[in-house]
Amino acid sequence: MVGIIMGSISDLKVMQGAIDILKEFGVSVETDIVSAHRTPQKMMDYASGAESRGIKVIIAGAGGAAHLPGMVASCTVLPVIGVPVKSSNSIDGWDSVLSILQMPNGVPVATVALNASLNAGLLAIQILGTADKEINQKLHAYKSELIDKVNKMSIELKNVQN
Amino acid sequence: MVGIIMGSISDLKVMQGAIDILKEFGVSVETDIVSAHRTPQKMMDYASGAESRGIKVIIAGAGGAAHLPGMVASCTVLPVIGVPVKSSNSIDGWDSVLSILQMPNGVPVATVALNASLNAGLLAIQILGTADKEINQKLHAYKSELIDKVNKMSIELKNVQN
Amino acid sequence: MVGIIMGSISDLKVMQGAIDILKEFGVSVETDIVSAHRTPQKMMDYASGAESRGIKVIIAGAGGAAHLPGMVASCTVLPVIGVPVKSSNSIDGWDSVLSILQMPNGVPVATVALNASLNAGLLAIQILGTADKEINQKLHAYKSELIDKVNKMSIELKNVQN
Amino acid sequence: MVGIIMGSISDLKVMQGAIDILKEFGVSVETDIVSAHRTPQKMMDYASGAESRGIKVIIAGAGGAAHLPGMVASCTVLPVIGVPVKSSNSIDGWDSVLSILQMPNGVPVATVALNASLNAGLLAIQILGTADKEINQKLHAYKSELIDKVNKMSIELKNVQN
Amino acid sequence: MVGIIMGSISDLKVMQGAIDILKEFGVSVETDIVSAHRTPQKMMDYASGAESRGIKVIIAGAGGAAHLPGMVASCTVLPVIGVPVKSSNSIDGWDSVLSILQMPNGVPVATVALNASLNAGLLAIQILGTADKEINQKLHAYKSELIDKVNKMSIELKNVQN
Amino acid sequence: MVGIIMGSISDLKVMQGAIDILKEFGVSVETDIVSAHRTPQKMMDYASGAESRGIKVIIAGAGGAAHLPGMVASCTVLPVIGVPVKSSNSIDGWDSVLSILQMPNGVPVATVALNASLNAGLLAIQILGTADKEINQKLHAYKSELIDKVNKMSIELKNVQN
Amino acid sequence: MVGIIMGSISDLKVMQGAIDILKEFGVSVETDIVSAHRTPQKMMDYASGAESRGIKVIIAGAGGAAHLPGMVASCTVLPVIGVPVKSSNSIDGWDSVLSILQMPNGVPVATVALNASLNAGLLAIQILGTADKEINQKLHAYKSELIDKVNKMSIELKNVQN
Amino acid sequence: MVGIIMGSISDLKVMQGAIDILKEFGVSVETDIVSAHRTPQKMMDYASGAESRGIKVIIAGAGGAAHLPGMVASCTVLPVIGVPVKSSNSIDGWDSVLSILQMPNGVPVATVALNASLNAGLLAIQILGTADKEINQKLHAYKSELIDKVNKMSIELKNVQN
Repeated sequence: MVGIIMGSISDLKVMQGAIDILKEFGVSVETDIVSAHRTPQKMMDYASGAESRGIKVIIAGAGGAAHLPGMVASCTVLPVIGVPVKSSNSIDGWDSVLSILQMPNGVPVATVALNASLNAGLLAIQILGTADKEINQKLHAYKSELIDKVNKMSIELKNVQN
Repeated sequence: MVGIIMGSISDLKVMQGAIDILKEFGVSVETDIVSAHRTPQKMMDYASGAESRGIKVIIAGAGGAAHLPGMVASCTVLPVIGVPVKSSNSIDGWDSVLSILQMPNGVPVATVALNASLNAGLLAIQILGTADKEINQKLHAYKSELIDKVNKMSIELKNVQN
Repeated sequence: MVGIIMGSISDLKVMQGAIDILKEFGVSVETDIVSAHRTPQKMMDYASGAESRGIKVIIAGAGGAAHLPGMVASCTVLPVIGVPVKSSNSIDGWDSVLSILQMPNGVPVATVALNASLNAGLLAIQILGTADKEINQKLHAYKSELIDKVNKMSIELKNVQN
Repeated sequence: MVGIIMGSISDLKVMQGAIDILKEFGVSVETDIVSAHRTPQKMMDYASGAESRGIKVIIAGAGGAAHLPGMVASCTVLPVIGVPVKSSNSIDGWDSVLSILQMPNGVPVATVALNASLNAGLLAIQILGTADKEINQKLHAYKSELIDKVNKMSIELKNVQN
Repeated sequence: MVGIIMGSISDLKVMQGAIDILKEFGVSVETDIVSAHRTPQKMMDYASGAESRGIKVIIAGAGGAAHLPGMVASCTVLPVIGVPVKSSNSIDGWDSVLSILQMPNGVPVATVALNASLNAGLLAIQILGTADKEINQKLHAYKSELIDKVNKMSIELKNVQN
Repeated sequence: MVGIIMGSISDLKVMQGAIDILKEFGVSVETDIVSAHRTPQKMMDYASGAESRGIKVIIAGAGGAAHLPGMVASCTVLPVIGVPVKSSNSIDGWDSVLSILQMPNGVPVATVALNASLNAGLLAIQILGTADKEINQKLHAYKSELIDKVNKMSIELKNVQN
Repeated sequence: MVGIIMGSISDLKVMQGAIDILKEFGVSVETDIVSAHRTPQKMMDYASGAESRGIKVIIAGAGGAAHLPGMVASCTVLPVIGVPVKSSNSIDGWDSVLSILQMPNGVPVATVALNASLNAGLLAIQILGTADKEINQKLHAYKSELIDKVNKMSIELKNVQN
Repeated sequence: MVGIIMGSISDLKVMQGAIDILKEFGVSVETDIVSAHRTPQKMMDYASGAESRGIKVIIAGAGGAAHLPGMVASCTVLPVIGVPVKSSNSIDGWDSVLSILQMPNGVPVATVALNASLNAGLLAIQILGTADKEINQKLHAYKSELIDKVNKMSIELKNVQN
């Protein structure tokens, strides 16, 4: 199971990509609103209890001074994937990217691109796939689909150009 | 009393400026090493217990993905002053500045300039000075000293130029 | 009393957040248009007279080469909170953030996030709360409300996901 | 087994942190020099053959226009961890950070902080720990050691300050 | 012949400028969708086979962690021109600019301005023009047209101002 | 006469370039230490009295949150030239550049490059030269010297290369 | 007379501010389209002939790799004011700001804020005012108007708040 | 023949890489000091005369507000390669990178990485190689050498690790 958390329901629009790809791969998902800054105790309880609830990977999305992924990582030994969210009043997304990425030694966060929740979901799937043959096979199939999509666009381009 | 915390003893070199100016103003100081990422529980205990221990203002210095000031602010109603520390492997200090400054609505951190622990101490003194006449008078004297220093440099420059 | 100033009435839209939260906490507010660049004398008079008018904290919002918070801080011993405003023709807000944040030793400005006037107001309240029991209690209640809001969103998310 | 690759032997100084922490946790490591730009065929062979060689996670360090982590990720379904290396002539590390982080949908790279190879190793260990009880227990012990280190520094600070 | 490739058909809007200017100069163009991240084998085949297919210059457009131009350059001795595309979720275009520009010694990419596919096409024409008299003459004519356009605007401005 | 001011005598090292070039052109110079933040009243008196003292152009150097040039400009109708000084703890000079450059409508500062006090002096000379024939002629001579210097380096390069 | 040039008629929208303020002060203006990159010879002729045509100050607006102000400055001893224009495909205006500001020793450009053509015009007026009493008096009047505007907004704010 | 120019002999240290690689490939090189800002007429003469002197490609290195590559490109139809040089007082190299890269439509500059003169030379060789079989063969050999170097480092690493 993959836990997906975000600081506000307004982040759901961005984080939906992770939920969708995980469901597409048949991975069960647990979602919640957890705020490092407004509910620090809930955040700690969530993070320290995740392992015993059967969660294998945590995905945390946050914007601005984005402390949620790093703080969750400080309270669990599970791999934590951070999604920098470009919120309003963000300074072009730099704040959330740097707040999530630049973690100190001992407490890593696996950071993905700005707003890239689909990739966060996929990375969680890859992590699960290291020990799950079925998921691993689905990942190989997914890679083939990526090639198919490019090939289709290649044909489309030729049609457009001629 | 002002609480001064930092994530590692290696930050003491930068944070000493705050300790010194507070002592100069006769304000008692409590210092500790508290790491948001390595000791999240201690951090929460520190922040939530600060008020009852008589602390009026908290100064927190941190580098990189600097979560300490913001997380402490999330666990206390005391004013929290954040000092962005330019650590090694920092991306020119931008990471600590943005991680401390860009806090979400509801949980402010009073951010000062990069490595500006002296100013963090002085800001704490100004905050105490809003309700403490003696401190207020010392602050007026401090302002006069700033003018004196510039005037001395002004004379020095004239000597150098002639 | 908290003094709130801005360089132009066009900043009111951003600065209203500070006014609102202060009123919500029952703190009296004095607002004015004061421009460091167009009315330097008024700015100096405002800043040096603020203390005697009963102002405890000054909040100054400014955009671009945002000199108002720092210049006010140079003329008073009161704590000054600076709100970087993302004005039109701003270089993504970097100019106002750096102009307010990077103050030299001796003259601190408590900087909050870009456009974060609500947090500026809240920080002023926290400062007043260090010496005012009633405000302190309201701040504790405010913290609880933040938790309630997250919990409500948590339930909302579960409803959306099911 | 964790595969650790870098584009040049000059990156070893930075990447040693990953090798050391993995060995400390008793995880077997395979290291090689693989350059996306100078040996693209070797890079593809390395990446597509990694899974069958028993590698579970790949750590790739690269500087400048750092294409190695992303290109390896394009050729494998294993999780790939990217370490942005601040090379000489780098533009302050921004180039390697953005080249590794900003991957398109479908091909994630788990990015860690600038030069943070220790954290890359630790993240690989956390990934292995999702399916390996022994590693999981060592990670819990490692977390405790982090706390001990802070507590020791806390005592050290008290000694210094008194 | 000039080869123009891009990672997705959505980049065609930006890359059309290169196609148009090349056609205007009577240079034959071969376009395709080639993705470094989704179709790495096709990318390598494309790049290593380009020379034998009669391609003289390759133009590659890419956004985000833009690896296509650099990876193509790693697989061919032809000059490769990179067009940084400002895609959605890009960090203001910095990611694509730096990912394309900051290539290591031994594998250059001729980088043009953000979204500047017209200039990429023109640069390809200039390269062909070093060995093709007819193209060279057309380039001299093109330079004259640039002057004419400015002169026309000069007259237009005088009309507007009077 | 040209007035040259700086916030601290430590800036003299950078500002000497302006003094030297002005003396080289025979323009009289008045230097002083004036700090916007530590001596706001002196700054206002300096700026508002400059014109009547016979000063034609003011050059102000400042680092960090560099308010001196802009504040002086707010108190005089003389042209003010700002020199961004890269001070220690500066964020790579961006803070002083943006604090000086991004002035609001109505109060311009003529900004020169980071640490470019020689150019500030030269710009002051060019301004005086608009109404002073002798200075104008010296400027033409100075331009010729620039050409001579390049020509000498050109010969030097040929010697080195052969 | 002040010469105002820009590289394209599309820049007129931004540059109109300079034309308007100069006319408001009764200063005669000469406008033209001059492109450093498309009409280098015209640019050189314009710059080297400006002085003899009676021009005292040149204002040059340019975007992207904005070479016009600096190149004009290289061909004249007149003061040149550069206006960084935020053009489409600009990287947030940084390109034009840095291309204009960071001139080498010997060839200064008086740079104003992004898109700040009004201030460019005003700076030209201040330069002329150093030797023209009438303009000087108008500048003093203009300063008073700035104060009046703020005072009016101050009253407006009080009405809005009550 | 390839023309290599730079604005000052102090840039030779950086630009030597281009000279060396061109000589290694047996390409004749013409070097000169040409400054856009100090010798604009020489720059124009150099650029407009290059073609008739037998130059096929021009490499121009420049720092700060780096106008040389773009201005040369404005005066010739030859391909121009720009090398951003990180000079002292540069703002981390951003100024030269953006001044060279962000050229307007109609006048491309083939930009390489910061200080990457070796790659500039190699790109010139690739351009010549599009019409010169011998050079083309040498480029294929050069690519093989790159592979050999990586393979040697690969063996070296294995020795170090065992």
